[in-house]
Amino acid sequence: MTDAQGPAPEERDELEGLYGATEAVVREIRKALAENHPEAVGELVRPFHAADLADLFEQLNTEERAMLVSLVGTDVDPEFFSYLDYAVREDVIDDLDTEQLATVVQELDTDDAIDLIEDLDAEDQAELLQAIPAEDRALYEDALRYPEDSAARLMNREVATVPSFWSVGQTIDYMRSDAELPSTFYDIYIIDPSHRPIGALPVSRLLRTDRPVPVSEIMSTDLKIIPATMDQEDVAFLFRQYGLASAPVVDDSDRLIGVITVDDVVDVIEEEHEEDILKLGGVSEDDLYHAVVGTTLARFPWLLLNLATAFIAANVIGLFDASIEKVVALAVLMPIVASMGGNAGTQTLTIAVRALAVKELTPANALRIIFKEVFVGSINGVVFAILVGLAAWLWFGNPLIGAVIGAAMIINLMVAALAGILIPLTMDKIGADPAVGSSVFVTTITDVVGFFSFLGLATIVLL
Amino acid sequence: MTDAQGPAPEERDELEGLYGATEAVVREIRKALAENHPEAVGELVRPFHAADLADLFEQLNTEERAMLVSLVGTDVDPEFFSYLDYAVREDVIDDLDTEQLATVVQELDTDDAIDLIEDLDAEDQAELLQAIPAEDRALYEDALRYPEDSAARLMNREVATVPSFWSVGQTIDYMRSDAELPSTFYDIYIIDPSHRPIGALPVSRLLRTDRPVPVSEIMSTDLKIIPATMDQEDVAFLFRQYGLASAPVVDDSDRLIGVITVDDVVDVIEEEHEEDILKLGGVSEDDLYHAVVGTTLARFPWLLLNLATAFIAANVIGLFDASIEKVVALAVLMPIVASMGGNAGTQTLTIAVRALAVKELTPANALRIIFKEVFVGSINGVVFAILVGLAAWLWFGNPLIGAVIGAAMIINLMVAALAGILIPLTMDKIGADPAVGSSVFVTTITDVVGFFSFLGLATIVLL
Repeated sequence: MTDAQGPAPEERDELEGLYGATEAVVREIRKALAENHPEAVGELVRPFHAADLADLFEQLNTEERAMLVSLVGTDVDPEFFSYLDYAVREDVIDDLDTEQLATVVQELDTDDAIDLIEDLDAEDQAELLQAIPAEDRALYEDALRYPEDSAARLMNREVATVPSFWSVGQTIDYMRSDAELPSTFYDIYIIDPSHRPIGALPVSRLLRTDRPVPVSEIMSTDLKIIPATMDQEDVAFLFRQYGLASAPVVDDSDRLIGVITVDDVVDVIEEEHEEDILKLGGVSEDDLYHAVVGTTLARFPWLLLNLATAFIAANVIGLFDASIEKVVALAVLMPIVASMGGNAGTQTLTIAVRALAVKELTPANALRIIFKEVFVGSINGVVFAILVGLAAWLWFGNPLIGAVIGAAMIINLMVAALAGILIPLTMDKIGADPAVGSSVFVTTITDVVGFFSFLGLATIVLL
Repeated sequence: MTDAQGPAPEERDELEGLYGATEAVVREIRKALAENHPEAVGELVRPFHAADLADLFEQLNTEERAMLVSLVGTDVDPEFFSYLDYAVREDVIDDLDTEQLATVVQELDTDDAIDLIEDLDAEDQAELLQAIPAEDRALYEDALRYPEDSAARLMNREVATVPSFWSVGQTIDYMRSDAELPSTFYDIYIIDPSHRPIGALPVSRLLRTDRPVPVSEIMSTDLKIIPATMDQEDVAFLFRQYGLASAPVVDDSDRLIGVITVDDVVDVIEEEHEEDILKLGGVSEDDLYHAVVGTTLARFPWLLLNLATAFIAANVIGLFDASIEKVVALAVLMPIVASMGGNAGTQTLTIAVRALAVKELTPANALRIIFKEVFVGSINGVVFAILVGLAAWLWFGNPLIGAVIGAAMIINLMVAALAGILIPLTMDKIGADPAVGSSVFVTTITDVVGFFSFLGLATIVLL
């Protein structure tokens, strides 16, 4: 089962042997699928980690996915489903019946099960829940009552807890006996009689302490206790800020109802960052696996908004059509001023949006940073005014054109800096997300100011 | 010590009580610093977590930082230094002498100590290392021999290891006695006689197993073993991909030399994402805390590159100056076609760069996604051609102008889709980072094609 083309060069890198779904293996599997060799496919797929199997599915087309599902069936690690991209998962789940899906869900940790259930449409969700025994169903239904993206959806409901009056020895004996614990855990939580968390005890510390010591003596009490309704973005912030490995989650009455671990938070951080990047790029969601219609619809609003702002800029140019008719060089040069402004504004905006997201840009230092950005904008304005002014002079043999474009460049780069910092600050202040739409606002302003200052000054000076 | 203005509205959100450096507290501290009330400052700062103290420092100006350093001195949790932003840390370290810094470094975990030492300039680094006892120094010097951003820089050199022939009981007794273990750990590594890692044992599993059982019977053997020279980006990929809590790091001879834990990887993920966002925004590094000159220099190359591409676009317009002189409406409308192309291209580019970063866009599905993007581009092209064509017709009362701009729009949105996907794919293929510079290439192409197709068609059809 060797591939005539040999392994891809990418496979020889440092991830070799550590990552399953390499290019060469994927290619072999597709070849075996195309040639209808089920045993060969099975042999190649068997050693796959659930996460790599998910990657493999994401790289196959719809027919290949269906073939592979019929081959491997539900005979895979159920974790496979939690690693799948949302759009691909829908595709795969469609091939399973409710009974099969119910089996998968019950084998997953509660947080992963919720993640799978919450994405189903209402009808499928109800049907699936009916197929699950009442006790587990209550657990899922309770989680679904909390808002999407809340801490309650993220937490695992299996927690290792002990009362504060226990000793290390009692705790160890209990851990050895009790089967209702999560498969792996890092911290044991100490609870008071009302089931409120009052301390945490890393398992390694428990292990290294003598049996008679009370757990209350060695527990850490500076807990970051997370309300079940907290947004996952705030949860991720707390984990990053304090380097947490896990944190207890409490309900309205401060009772411990679950625990969030850092590996779940890594997924949230990924999600949030993906959103940030996509929002800055004017895309509402990751549509890589979406069909053409879905993708087109998702991108349409941004393009429509851009069309509206482009017409505003065109109207500004329209104000000066008489000037352009007389000096056609103006039409040639005007996009340069607008483009430089858009670029400089985007630079400032990127820094500002990022700093707001990690709480580094705050009312305490905003004024200082606004002044700095405008200062940077002015220096860049003067430098590029000289460069572009000389170039325009040489090109059109008229020093006045050089002076006009230079002055417009200084104005536009200063405005770009101001807009790049003030727009995200204002959006943050009024509670809007500065990553969404800021860049459209900023480039609209730099286009309008760029065209207006250049054509306006030219009309005054040249005509 | 209440603030006359009351707490900021932001403080009342869900993070209240969980995050230390809130706006209201920072305001109070700055007030106390300004009014020279050292006791008040001390009282406010004392309950701060090291991470919050770092946030506080980042929000103060240089004089306030110096005042606070002289107040709190080195009497802070040394971890404080590892939470500080790089530029601010330089500022704070300058106020400490070598002895003080050496004390701080030795109190840190090896990974945090390396992080601090590696950022010093060569002279300060040599001086600091001389002030550290020989045994610890050898450890740091060894780490510094590995490349920056490698796994060796990221790992903690204290690891809990036991030989494979030990029992659970022996392991627990050893853990209780040995002082050379990390303060907290999640996994114990099982090593062979050559000190090579052959298995991992979560501490919670050790705790729950009976004493006579051999560790080799309960250890997990599907280890992801990380070479010391692996780039931290690949390390982060493996942790994300397989949901790892920790992973062993080995040297050239496959000997276990350290362990990387997921909390360190969270910082790497943050760093990598920050880089991604900044690169897409045309900024080479986070310059929020940089001085004006540093910031200006960092942003200059991108603006210069943009200026060059803007002149290319201007030259394309220059080819058609005769047409513009005759029909000035062309100058008014031409930025619309270019701007829509730039926007659509950026959308595709954002999806592509993101998908390449998370290995979702691969040779196996590239062709399928290229076709999809061009299809989406064509649909959007037709829709916006109709919209903009009708608008231009109404505005200038000439159906031919509408037809020309519509046709140019279809061409440019298809080209935008092609450029948005092919440019990052090509850069990735030749080993360049698709996030850097892709957007300049894409918008240059959409500007050139936008101006050329619109003005070219207009010259043929209208004149």
